[in-house]
This record gives sequence, C-alpha cells and structure tokens, in this order.
Amino acid sequence: MANLQSTESAYINWLRRRIPAHPRVLIGPGDDTAAVIVDGTRPLLITTDMLMEGSCFLLKEAGPRAVGRKALAVNLSDIAAMAGTPTAAVVSLGLPRTGGRELAEQLFEGIHELADEFRVPIVGGDTNTWSGQLVISITVIGESIGHRPVPRSGARAGDWIFVTGHLGGSILGKHLSFTPRLREATALHQQVTLRAMIDISDGLAKELHHLGQESGCGARLRSAAIPIADAARQLALTSGKPPLRHALGDGEDFELLFCVSPEDGERLLQNPVVPVFHIGEMTDAGFEIEIDGNHEPLEAWGYEHAMSE
Amino acid sequence: MANLQSTESAYINWLRRRIPAHPRVLIGPGDDTAAVIVDGTRPLLITTDMLMEGSCFLLKEAGPRAVGRKALAVNLSDIAAMAGTPTAAVVSLGLPRTGGRELAEQLFEGIHELADEFRVPIVGGDTNTWSGQLVISITVIGESIGHRPVPRSGARAGDWIFVTGHLGGSILGKHLSFTPRLREATALHQQVTLRAMIDISDGLAKELHHLGQESGCGARLRSAAIPIADAARQLALTSGKPPLRHALGDGEDFELLFCVSPEDGERLLQNPVVPVFHIGEMTDAGFEIEIDGNHEPLEAWGYEHAMSE
Repeated sequence: MANLQSTESAYINWLRRRIPAHPRVLIGPGDDTAAVIVDGTRPLLITTDMLMEGSCFLLKEAGPRAVGRKALAVNLSDIAAMAGTPTAAVVSLGLPRTGGRELAEQLFEGIHELADEFRVPIVGGDTNTWSGQLVISITVIGESIGHRPVPRSGARAGDWIFVTGHLGGSILGKHLSFTPRLREATALHQQVTLRAMIDISDGLAKELHHLGQESGCGARLRSAAIPIADAARQLALTSGKPPLRHALGDGEDFELLFCVSPEDGERLLQNPVVPVFHIGEMTDAGFEIEIDGNHEPLEAWGYEHAMSE
Repeated sequence: MANLQSTESAYINWLRRRIPAHPRVLIGPGDDTAAVIVDGTRPLLITTDMLMEGSCFLLKEAGPRAVGRKALAVNLSDIAAMAGTPTAAVVSLGLPRTGGRELAEQLFEGIHELADEFRVPIVGGDTNTWSGQLVISITVIGESIGHRPVPRSGARAGDWIFVTGHLGGSILGKHLSFTPRLREATALHQQVTLRAMIDISDGLAKELHHLGQESGCGARLRSAAIPIADAARQLALTSGKPPLRHALGDGEDFELLFCVSPEDGERLLQNPVVPVFHIGEMTDAGFEIEIDGNHEPLEAWGYEHAMSE
C-alpha cells in the first residue's frame, strides 16, 4: 500500500472515463441503475448488487432468510430510484463447502418472500461452492414507467427536496427488513415530474451530495424538517452522536430522496399520495444545513467502501 | 454432513419446483440463459455467471486480465447458446482488501478487450472490498435473433447432432482464451432451424445428457466423428486417459452443441457457413457411443459442482 487509500468513487470515475459512450446506453456506470434501449418503446433498466458475508452482513446474526431477502431488496430499491418496475431477477451464489444446500434453500426462501410480494420472477442464476464465505449477487432487470427513467442528474437550483420516510439508526433492524419504495416511486411518478431521484443506501448527506454533483447544483437542508427515525434516537443514547447526525449519516434506510419543482412540491404537500417530507431546496452551489437559524456546511457523511491501491 | 453429497443439479431441480410458472417467462431456471417477455417484440435474454478465486480460477496463474476476459466470455457463450446477441453487461466485484484498485482495473481491461470485440457496453456494476478472495459476477442481457430463443429442449429423435469445434484439453489454455461462438450461432440460425442448442461448458457427454433429458430423447455418438483437440492428445500423454475421453469429458471448450433435422444437417454439410462437425444422432432413449463398431453406454462425464447438505 504505497499510495493513499482510494475509494469506490475514484474507481467509478476511472471506469466512466474508460468506458466509451454507446448510442443504446441512456444511463451508464455510476447511477443506481443502468438504462439501455432494447427493441421496445421503453428503456430497459439493469441493476446489480453483491452482498458478502462479514463485510455486508453477519450470517449468524441476520440468518440466511433475511440475507436473501435483503439481497433482492437492495436491487428493487435501485429500480424504485429510477421510478421503474422490476421484471425479473437472476441470483448467483458462492456457497461455503459445508451446509451449502441448506443455506441455499434458506436464502432462496427469503428472496422468494420479497419476489412474491413484488411479482418478480427469479429466472436463473449460477450456484457455486467454494472455500470462502457466502457471496450473493443479484441482478434485476426492470422497465421504465415513462419514456425515460428518472436520473440522478435532473435537479435544478430552486427545486424542492423530499424524502419518503424517517431516517437513521437502520442498523437496529430496518436494514434487514425495509420495503423497497417501488409503490411509492410509481405513485409519485404519476402525480408529479420527478426531476432527480436516488435511494438512500449510503446516508442522506452522502446521497444528496451525489445527486447535487450529478445535477450541477448545491443543496440546503432544514434540520427541523428532517424526519428522524425512532431508531436514530435510540442509537443516539449509546453512540454519543445526536439523532440528527444519525439521520444524516447512517446508511441503509433505503428511502427515496427526490427533487421536484416548487409547483409540484406544493402539489405533493397538498395532496400526498404517499408519505413525503419536504426537507430543503436545491441551490446553485455548496451543501449546507440550517440548524437553529445557523447555516452550517453539510459534509458527505455516509458509508463508502474503502479500496486500497 | 449427515446426508450424502448432493449436487447443483438437485438444487436446480428443487428451485424449479419452488418457482411458480410466470406468464412472461419463456425460459426459466436450469437453462443456460433465461428468456423473458418485456415490451418489445423479441424476448429478452438474461444470463449470469460467478467466478471465484481458488475454485474457478487461480489468479496468480491466470492473471487478472485473463480472469476478467473469461468472466465475460462464459456469459457471452451462454447468450450464443440461445442464438442471441448480447446487449449490455453489468459487473460485480468482491475484491481483496490489499491491491483491490489495481486488480479491479486489470480485470476490467480484460473484460473490455472482449466487450469491445463484441460491442457489448458495460453499463454498471457493484464494487466491494472484503476479507475474502476475489469474486467476479457478470450478468449479460441480450436479445433473441428470432421470435423465440433456441432452447435445450427442442431436439427430436432422428435429429443430427453437431458441434462447432475441437474438444478436450481446454485446461492447457483454451479455457482462458476461447472465443464465445456468437458469430457462429448467428450464422447457423440464419441458415437452418436450430432445434436445440447448448454450450459445452461442463463437457460434451454431460451437456449432451442435459440436452437429451430436456428434450425427452436419447443420443448416439460416433467416436470417429468427434473432433478431438490437439490439447486433448497432449493431455492424454500424461493423464493416462485416451484423447477421446478428454474430448467427451473435459469442460470449458465453450463450443456449441446443437441439433437440426437431417435435411438441415445435409444443408450444413453441403454448404458450411462456419466449421461444424456431425458427431451423431438423437434417439428415442438412452445415451451411447459407437467405438470401433461397438455400442457402449455414454456416461454423463463432465464437471459438476459438489454441494454438501
């Protein structure tokens, strides 16, 4: 490790430079979900997530059913973030040599629980056994509801910022049991123009930075408007950090963070079809949060995979 | 391990029983590639493969570029087996903590080499770091050339059996450098009706059993007609097994095995658009091979992942 530690973001930036533009690719690497033109009228969505024992979950603590369910749920959340609907999934497993068959069946029961709820057929996969720990990789394809999926990059200064639920402290349980916001995304898409959207997998502050950077904007949050989860307050009792800090920085709530015009924002507040919380506005530049009348810088708190050179 | 060792096939059979039929799924678990109806006129193909260090490859021996290339190549071979064309790919990595960034870039260079050749854009993925060894999982989506993809299950008794190339001994090098038979599949699909097709990943004998079982047929091979690779003869010098046994049982040649009517078979032999070898015929039941005028049973030699209960 001669060099400083690098990050997944730097790698993704390298990938983006390395990959040439392609006429059929509407949205490529770096977003939650890719969008590709196939032969239908609506773009096809593709997203994939790999969960690894010891790094993304503790198998003994969570149990295989919850791990299987989560492995599909994180993918469905990515489809929701584009306001898409899931079409099918494939599941690849790297199983430990001992107990692999029983483990595979339990994982699959968890996957199936959520797949049934959202009517997503599991159409294939690849099952391997090896000397390492459990790895589960799921890819979901889906379809855009409209003619174009909702990107991260469409926000403009002045847009209102919303989230779909309470945030923080997901480690106390929600990270294993959350419901991907597919129904909410569809309902919102039908009511307003979603200019930019992202799911909160790595923390509100960090995802807002992503969305702002991709849109060429800044953002200002109002701390009093941020819906803080009970779990964030509970965690704050032992963590030494305030509940707000958990709501801003904790990952894996998998709520949606989205931007709409002020007119659409008014419409959502007057006639809410799903729970929404108006937490701030997009700005020309810079990220800040208003706390008790003071404007403080908003850092990109949140989870980032370390990657060494 | 109270029970006997079970196999991936048994697990796939369990999965098939567990997964309900779905009106949009033309081909589901157990085939090389799934086929799903989206909103276009042609079915969408989806295939996925996970390669794991120590089990599927030796990273130090093969080098990361070759591993990356192979991880995409095995998926493209699955698309070829349906007579499809690849549309896009997503790549998930589980990287070791030390040297992950450099490794990821080298893997990607190998992936890109083949992706460029077949014009397959890499549209996304998921990059993780963990305490385990390298895992690489690629999913490729594709499109059927015709109105239906070529399944494993369409062969009939009397059909002629063909392969697209020489077999056996791939461990000496071809398993890392093979070219997926996409161009060959397209050319064959345009010339004749491909009733059933499969790519030879786990060995000719085993894949023929798969194809026969799915089609409700048996098969008879003629040993003298089987194209034996030079690598099989070379390997036989040290393995103690005859070259034919390597051609029948070695995996990872990734040639295509397919069935056509006798009329189409004659057409292929009279006007070959790509190299093809007529190696036998499908029968009503049973698997056998003719060697020097004797009919011997043909076992399902080949690679199978062990999976313990």
